[in-house]
Amino acid sequence: MDTVILTRDDVHAVVSAVGLDTMMDETIRALIQAFIQYDENTMNVFERDGFSYTKPHPSLLEWMPVARTGDRAVVKMVSYNPINPMRFELPTIVSTMNMYDLKTGNLRALCDGTYLTAVRTGAASAIASELLAHPDSSVIGLIGCGAQAVTQLHALSRCFHIDEVLAFDINESVTDSFIDRTRFLDLPVRKVSRDVIERNAHIICTATSVAPGAGPVLDDAFLRDDVHINAVGSDMAGKTELPLTLLHASLVCPDYTPQAILEGECQQLHNGHIGPSLIEIVKNPNAYVSYQAQKTVFDSTGFALEDMAAMEVLLAYAERLNVGQRVNIESVSYDAFNPYSFVQDV
Amino acid sequence: MDTVILTRDDVHAVVSAVGLDTMMDETIRALIQAFIQYDENTMNVFERDGFSYTKPHPSLLEWMPVARTGDRAVVKMVSYNPINPMRFELPTIVSTMNMYDLKTGNLRALCDGTYLTAVRTGAASAIASELLAHPDSSVIGLIGCGAQAVTQLHALSRCFHIDEVLAFDINESVTDSFIDRTRFLDLPVRKVSRDVIERNAHIICTATSVAPGAGPVLDDAFLRDDVHINAVGSDMAGKTELPLTLLHASLVCPDYTPQAILEGECQQLHNGHIGPSLIEIVKNPNAYVSYQAQKTVFDSTGFALEDMAAMEVLLAYAERLNVGQRVNIESVSYDAFNPYSFVQDV
Repeated sequence: MDTVILTRDDVHAVVSAVGLDTMMDETIRALIQAFIQYDENTMNVFERDGFSYTKPHPSLLEWMPVARTGDRAVVKMVSYNPINPMRFELPTIVSTMNMYDLKTGNLRALCDGTYLTAVRTGAASAIASELLAHPDSSVIGLIGCGAQAVTQLHALSRCFHIDEVLAFDINESVTDSFIDRTRFLDLPVRKVSRDVIERNAHIICTATSVAPGAGPVLDDAFLRDDVHINAVGSDMAGKTELPLTLLHASLVCPDYTPQAILEGECQQLHNGHIGPSLIEIVKNPNAYVSYQAQKTVFDSTGFALEDMAAMEVLLAYAERLNVGQRVNIESVSYDAFNPYSFVQDV
Repeated sequence: MDTVILTRDDVHAVVSAVGLDTMMDETIRALIQAFIQYDENTMNVFERDGFSYTKPHPSLLEWMPVARTGDRAVVKMVSYNPINPMRFELPTIVSTMNMYDLKTGNLRALCDGTYLTAVRTGAASAIASELLAHPDSSVIGLIGCGAQAVTQLHALSRCFHIDEVLAFDINESVTDSFIDRTRFLDLPVRKVSRDVIERNAHIICTATSVAPGAGPVLDDAFLRDDVHINAVGSDMAGKTELPLTLLHASLVCPDYTPQAILEGECQQLHNGHIGPSLIEIVKNPNAYVSYQAQKTVFDSTGFALEDMAAMEVLLAYAERLNVGQRVNIESVSYDAFNPYSFVQDV
C-alpha cells in the first residue's frame, strides 16, 4: 500500500520524455474515452466546494472530488490567489491532485494539478471544437492570454490546421509574452484589438480573469455566423464572460451541467436554453453535426472527470518511464487494532 | 514553496524520539489551546462529506476540511473499509492529512492520519473526562477494544490515577489482544462482562463498530450516578451507541455540535437536550464543575479542529528533529502565465 509521489521535477522528466504534443494528444484521447464511458450510475462527481476568503486578500481553496465506484477517486485541491504572481511570483492557481484506491482507502498518488488542469482544459476545448466548430476553422482568436490560453491554443493546434492566431489581452504585455510563450507551436500569432477577433475568428477562446459582474469580455455584434466559442474563464458564482444575446443565439454546451449552472455561462440561462453536455455530444456526435454551421458555445467550468483522466495519462507514463518515488504514508502497520504498533514493533 | 512529506517511517522516527507519552501530553495541550482560541469568525469547519458505497463492499471516503482564516487549512481524508483487516490485513480506517498554506495555496505537508486521529480522539476524551468526570475516577471501562480503545486508555492514563481497567469486546479475542496492546501502560486490565463495566466503572469509553440501528452497546440500569461516558463510536448517520434514557439523564457535551447532530449521539436528541460543546466547557470550566457529581456524556464524533492541532504537534517535532523530506510538488515554475514553462525552461 504505497503512494506514488510525482514532484515537479518528475513531471518535467515525464513530459520531456513523452513530449508536449503526445501528452496533449493522449489527454484528448483519454478525455474522449472517459466521456464515452461515463455512466452516472458508476461515476460520482461532487460539486466543487471549499473555503473562500476576502481577507487579507481574496482567495479560494477548493476541492473537486470524483470517484469511479469500487475503483478509485481523485480529489483535486485548487487554490486561487490572484495576488500570487505579484507578491510571490507564483501562479494565480496552485493545485495538487490526490488519487485514492477506493478498495483500501490508500492514497495511491500525489502530483501537481496546475499543469494537468491546463492540459485537460485545453483538451476539453479541442474536443468541443472538433464536434461543434466548422471543420475548416483556421483562424483562432484568444481573449485573455494568460496560462490557460497557452494550452487552449496548443490543444486546438492538434485538431485544426491553423492559418492565423489573433490574440488580445487587456494587459498588452501579457499579449506580448503570449507570443513568446506559444513560439513552440510555430504559428503566426498577431496582437490585435478585440474587434478584429470578433469579426474574423472561426474559434474564440475566452480565458480571462474578469471580475464577477464586470463582463462580458466580447461583443457579439459582428461575430461570424458559424463561430464556436470556448468560454473557459467562468469558474465561480457571478463570473461570466459572454453576452446573454450570444448565449441565446447559440447552442450552449456545458462540460458538466450541474456545475455550469452554478459557475459557468449557464448561470445566465434558464434550463430550456441549456444545450446538451459535452458528454452527450461525444456519445452521439452525428446528432449535432448540423450545429457546425451555427453559433456554438462550450461552457467550460472544469470537470473533475477530466482531471481524473488527465492524471491517469500522466501516471501511466510515469510508471512506464519508472519516474517518481514510492513512499509509505499510512500507518497500516502490523496490527490493525493497534494505532501504536508501528512504533512499538519496528 | 515545498511540501513536507512524513512517511510512516518518519512518523515512527518522530514518535520514537519523542515518546508516546509526550506525544499524547502535547496533543492534549494543543487541543486545549485550540479550543480556548477557537473563534467561529476565524475558524471555518466544513461538515464531513464524501463518497459512500455499498458495493462491492460497504466503504466510505470522506474529507474533513478545517481552515484558520489567512493562515492554513487541514484536509483529512478518511476511508472506512470494514473488511480491510480480513481481506488485506489493513486497518478499517486508512487516512491521510494534508495541510495547505492559505496565503499561497501550497500543500505544506502530507502525513498519515490514522495515528494522529487515534491520538487526538484519545486526547479529546481525556480533556472531556478531566472536566466532567469525578476527579477521583480510578476505574475505567472500555466497551469495544479495537484501535481507538488503546488511545482512549492511554490518554486517560495521562490524566487520572487508574486502579483498574475493565475491558469488554463482543469479539473475545479482541479483548485478549487489547490486554497485550496496552501492556506498555502497565495497568491492570481485566476481561469482564459488560455488566461489570456498567456497575463499576467511573469512566466508560464506548468505541464500537456497532451497525446503525443495532445499538445501544450498554445498558444504563446500574450505572454509577456520577459516571462519565466518552461515546466515541458514533460517526455516521444512524449509528449511535447509547440508550436514549441515559442521554436524557445526562449532561451531553458534543465535540462539534453541527456534526454531532448528524452523526453522533446527539442524533437522538432535540436541541433542548444537547449540552454545551467541549469548546464551551474548556473556555469556562468552572461553570460545569458541579456536573462532575452527575452523569455526563462526551459525544465525540471527531472534530477537524482536533486534527489540525494534532498535526501541528507532529509537524513541529518533525521539524525540530529534522525528520521528513521536503519536495516540490506544484509546478510553480518560472512563468506564472505559462503552464509549460517548467518543461521548456529547465
